[in-house]
Amino acid sequence: MTQVTNNFSEITFGRRSVRSFDTSVKISHEEMLEMIDEAVKAPSSVNMQPWRFVIAESDEAKAILKPLIRFNTLQNETSSAMVLVFGDMKSQERAEEIYGKAVAEGKMPEEVKEQQLATIVPMYDNSPKEVMNDIVHIDASLAAMQLMLVARAHGYDTNPIGGFEKDQLAQAFGLDPERYIPVIILAIGKAKDAGYPSVRLDASEVTSFK
Amino acid sequence: MTQVTNNFSEITFGRRSVRSFDTSVKISHEEMLEMIDEAVKAPSSVNMQPWRFVIAESDEAKAILKPLIRFNTLQNETSSAMVLVFGDMKSQERAEEIYGKAVAEGKMPEEVKEQQLATIVPMYDNSPKEVMNDIVHIDASLAAMQLMLVARAHGYDTNPIGGFEKDQLAQAFGLDPERYIPVIILAIGKAKDAGYPSVRLDASEVTSFK
Repeated sequence: MTQVTNNFSEITFGRRSVRSFDTSVKISHEEMLEMIDEAVKAPSSVNMQPWRFVIAESDEAKAILKPLIRFNTLQNETSSAMVLVFGDMKSQERAEEIYGKAVAEGKMPEEVKEQQLATIVPMYDNSPKEVMNDIVHIDASLAAMQLMLVARAHGYDTNPIGGFEKDQLAQAFGLDPERYIPVIILAIGKAKDAGYPSVRLDASEVTSFK
Repeated sequence: MTQVTNNFSEITFGRRSVRSFDTSVKISHEEMLEMIDEAVKAPSSVNMQPWRFVIAESDEAKAILKPLIRFNTLQNETSSAMVLVFGDMKSQERAEEIYGKAVAEGKMPEEVKEQQLATIVPMYDNSPKEVMNDIVHIDASLAAMQLMLVARAHGYDTNPIGGFEKDQLAQAFGLDPERYIPVIILAIGKAKDAGYPSVRLDASEVTSFK
């Protein structure tokens, strides 16, 4: 266990976007996978978990990324890794694997699994591309938010990046661009600066009660 | 301050989707706004905060919602509130307000504000609808995830709901459906059941290192 703090308020409300990281700090694959395991405890539509992660950490991967991330070069140069979060437009191909695991772990009766898959898989198969695009954006973003918080529990900071060449990222990393939709990139590492303080509209300015 | 626990692991990894709530528990507007203030500390693209919340809590609002949320009727009937999370497709109309607040609080020099708004506002104005749709889905989902965790810190649980009549929700609540895109609904309340245990694919099954 490599969690360094368990203070929810400090982790969550102390989070800031950090753009400059300590270049001497590498994150082990073991710890990265541990953080992703924690992040994907986030919920997803019909538990289909369409999030896919490419950890760009080598010099070669960062060189591929460099022309695709516009003005976010400092994060690319200094972070331990750039976590590319994709949404799988065909996540239902793993439905059997997921629901089978639930049955194997005694968390779902076999007949519930069969009944649910008989509904869910055709529903996903027949959903228009625009509908699936919305779903994978939502689900991948839920996991990305939880990953930003988990990172802080592990003593790291992040910078969420939306400004990149969305139409080129999958192919640049050898993924089928029709199937894998890039949602967000998270720079992650040990913070070298404190991050910018930022402001928010008050809840009362973005909320109505009905 | 109405936070009841600050244990990050318990809040985050103990979260489950809860579908049945204690109908005797109401959440005050004060506490709901406090939770939303905490949730919107989530990041957003160019800090434009396109999330908008409609708290459906009255019998009237829940009656409007009922035919629109398909099989999720138990949550609607028992939750303290259904939090409808929308994305504002014209969030840049509040850019001056947001960046002006940053200047007023001494967090941004006036010239940086002017320079950034001169870039951001035309960029958002000229972005195709599909691009803005992706952005508001990402940003609203980041805030929704943080709200699910904040709720647990306050002693509540949630159920994220994606299955609803997405094309009808805005209009049903008096919002311009071209401008306000429903992203996710969160049922929130005091849990009456423990929620379903669920499984996840291992991180190693959804991650590659490059």
